[in-house]
Amino acid sequence: MYLHPPDPALAERIAAVGRRWGGEFAVVPVDDWKRLVRTFPGAVVHLTMYGLPLERCLGRLARHRQLLLVVGGAKVPAQLYREATYNVAVGHQPHSEVAAVAVTLERLLGVPRPVRAGEAAQRIVPTARGKRVVGTRGPA
Amino acid sequence: MYLHPPDPALAERIAAVGRRWGGEFAVVPVDDWKRLVRTFPGAVVHLTMYGLPLERCLGRLARHRQLLLVVGGAKVPAQLYREATYNVAVGHQPHSEVAAVAVTLERLLGVPRPVRAGEAAQRIVPTARGKRVVGTRGPA
Repeated sequence: MYLHPPDPALAERIAAVGRRWGGEFAVVPVDDWKRLVRTFPGAVVHLTMYGLPLERCLGRLARHRQLLLVVGGAKVPAQLYREATYNVAVGHQPHSEVAAVAVTLERLLGVPRPVRAGEAAQRIVPTARGKRVVGTRGPA
Repeated sequence: MYLHPPDPALAERIAAVGRRWGGEFAVVPVDDWKRLVRTFPGAVVHLTMYGLPLERCLGRLARHRQLLLVVGGAKVPAQLYREATYNVAVGHQPHSEVAAVAVTLERLLGVPRPVRAGEAAQRIVPTARGKRVVGTRGPA
């Protein structure tokens, strides 16, 4: 995840989760978001409730080898609407940006699978009741 | 949305969004979450990374006429795992509760459509660039 403006404390909290639970998710600080959007070697997908319906865009999105999903806060600069390859709406009423990213990823990639044994300090065993966690090498 | 503990300021902010953008979303304050979970006339679906994979549960969930999706904060009482009809995981590593609700709703109901003309004070016209909003009766 590219994060603008940079937030080192948030990046470290997420890195700590990754050390414990596995995965390659990393937070990369970005000072100049315009440069990132312009030089990204793939399609830039701005998720906004003003955009075209996700259902209509999925086929085109899936044809790109690399996608940069972009979400902004309350005030998104007008320039992003122009610079984006696609402006895509997950819903056309106000909604959570986190929800927009989650639904788009799910439609493109499906629901994430459990990490494999050995990939993380600790790993969940899916269960109908309660919590099952195995493979603890101690908290990170 | 049932909200425990109650937060009247949040409920009012969401109601204001609804008056402006349409929809019947409402926040109902709940003092006693256990009573709500026990008396709900349908299936109680606790979304937790420790549960069974969503993909395996979707068929069963779709058979119920009413579903109560439940998400908690950092410390979910063990009792909820027992009281829930299903404990369901959208992912088996730490993730946003908002994302879990969004992906579950999307898998059950699909992506929301634009509101129809006349249903809201203002309404988005999906567009490839920029913002198109019509039907303003003035800000609510």
